[in-house]
Amino acid sequence: MDGKVYLVGCGLGEKHLTLQALKAIRDSEVILYDRLLDKRILEKAECKKIPLGKKMREPMPHEGWGKKGKGKNQERINKLLLKYANEGKTVAVLKVGDIFHFSRGFDAYRFLRSNGVEVEVVPGVSTHQVLSELGIPLTYRDGSSSVSLINANWISESKECGGLDADTLVFYMPVGNLENIVGKVRRRKRKVYCMLVENAGKEDYRVISGGLGDIVRLAGEALVEPPAIFVVSPYERKPYCKRITAFYMKGDGCAREIDGIPVEGYPLDSSRSLSRVIKEAETLYVKSPQALDRLCKTAPVKLLNSKTILVGGAATAASSKKAGLHVDFMI
Amino acid sequence: MDGKVYLVGCGLGEKHLTLQALKAIRDSEVILYDRLLDKRILEKAECKKIPLGKKMREPMPHEGWGKKGKGKNQERINKLLLKYANEGKTVAVLKVGDIFHFSRGFDAYRFLRSNGVEVEVVPGVSTHQVLSELGIPLTYRDGSSSVSLINANWISESKECGGLDADTLVFYMPVGNLENIVGKVRRRKRKVYCMLVENAGKEDYRVISGGLGDIVRLAGEALVEPPAIFVVSPYERKPYCKRITAFYMKGDGCAREIDGIPVEGYPLDSSRSLSRVIKEAETLYVKSPQALDRLCKTAPVKLLNSKTILVGGAATAASSKKAGLHVDFMI
Repeated sequence: MDGKVYLVGCGLGEKHLTLQALKAIRDSEVILYDRLLDKRILEKAECKKIPLGKKMREPMPHEGWGKKGKGKNQERINKLLLKYANEGKTVAVLKVGDIFHFSRGFDAYRFLRSNGVEVEVVPGVSTHQVLSELGIPLTYRDGSSSVSLINANWISESKECGGLDADTLVFYMPVGNLENIVGKVRRRKRKVYCMLVENAGKEDYRVISGGLGDIVRLAGEALVEPPAIFVVSPYERKPYCKRITAFYMKGDGCAREIDGIPVEGYPLDSSRSLSRVIKEAETLYVKSPQALDRLCKTAPVKLLNSKTILVGGAATAASSKKAGLHVDFMI
Repeated sequence: MDGKVYLVGCGLGEKHLTLQALKAIRDSEVILYDRLLDKRILEKAECKKIPLGKKMREPMPHEGWGKKGKGKNQERINKLLLKYANEGKTVAVLKVGDIFHFSRGFDAYRFLRSNGVEVEVVPGVSTHQVLSELGIPLTYRDGSSSVSLINANWISESKECGGLDADTLVFYMPVGNLENIVGKVRRRKRKVYCMLVENAGKEDYRVISGGLGDIVRLAGEALVEPPAIFVVSPYERKPYCKRITAFYMKGDGCAREIDGIPVEGYPLDSSRSLSRVIKEAETLYVKSPQALDRLCKTAPVKLLNSKTILVGGAATAASSKKAGLHVDFMI
């Protein structure tokens, strides 16, 4: 019997797994998997499982992208896949995101097909697609009719960068290169909004927002680390809600409205129990690092992370990172 | 109890359904669905089901995109969703592809959130992602580090079009506007390859390939109709295989190799039975419309569609459409 290779994009977590991916996992006798893969996905496989490569800091399966001599790992993987297929085995390669998106999936496809191996490609939810969950539209009528997805690893001051003239720009793997990216964009665009999304698709994601003039500084102050994705959009993202519940220290004071949305304020340094208020709130505003620390002592992080969270600035966003709390908006 | 709205991207068919989408469908008491949705997806729901809008010719849920006065349908949908949510019901909107991609999903998101309704966005596999199944990479090392997705509905001779400077271009809804698109691209790019993919993600998809100089004519000759997606790439897609099995009429003659791949030829107008040859072939080459007609009388379309299919030109590609046969390559 002939072997078969599945090249599977698994999305960013178990919930993104498609029925096609699930079938591929269950059909396979051997699985090669991305170390960053959601462990719950791996548990669905009851066969031989081999981890791939080193632990990557970025979410995309991009080892060797654009760097010389780094393709060797993929060569080894290709040969291993061919060996299994020639033995008549069904093998799956499981990757985070979409396996053809800024990855070496195509290398494997071409190599295996040219060697007469049956290959099934399974597309998966990619990082830019989960931005919609955060209310960040990449395309929308009367505002953005084009979006480009750009590998930020390639960007340098001296090199041309493609895709910058689209209405919305999405940069993959931006963190180490944010200054160069912003430099390139500034030469092309003026009135745009910047959003750096750390851990997109995870519970403790954070959205650091700003303009082209201050996003590099804000990202530094908020201690953003890979994996992250960077969006430049003509559209200003706003908190959509009916009311905002604000938690503050008496010394900080409290706004009455944010973006035209009424604010109900609760001081954290009072004797009143806030458990019920927190539980019923949908959108929280936490002004300062002190207020954030206090709030995290008052309510479990899991409960807080089920809400939309607004913070007062980059310092509060930095505190949220330590607490494992996500941030939706920086006001 | 509070209501909830799921905005669900369902991909291009049942196999693309994610676990998150499946849960949304099973949780819901009412479902509003795109008429183009795979019927097998709808069968998974055992609740009230309401079809949306008119039958669209393109695969994307793009009604009203960029056209004045066409947003009314979405307004009605939004109000209906709010009504159900206010009654405490869980509702899902099911769309083909990704619900935030060239669609009005964001309108619904913003409207519902601003009215205090809980919204869960479920990303789905989009048309450009299934191109990988056809061996069309949108990004790859040393060749394409940026890709732009462009709504071709917006493109006109007089208007600026964003995204044209990316390495790879993907146009959604291109068929009625191919001449304008190609005109725009010709001003920016020279050595590129064009692929017009009809029915991407379906069994009877066809890939019509050519250059900027002849793709409009070839698309016309091959009788391409919506839904389709148009790719402009610096990368020439080739048939990756070990050997090609060619079927021809004796008068046509037969090549010995294609793209360096050895060809084994079988005349269709001989007394020899070809059932076994067809069954065992992986990549078929059919030179002329006559040969294609004859081949379809010899073997079931379903069997032929499980192979990679190369055809001799646009006329043979046109015949394939009538026969329900997909085309991978035009030689």
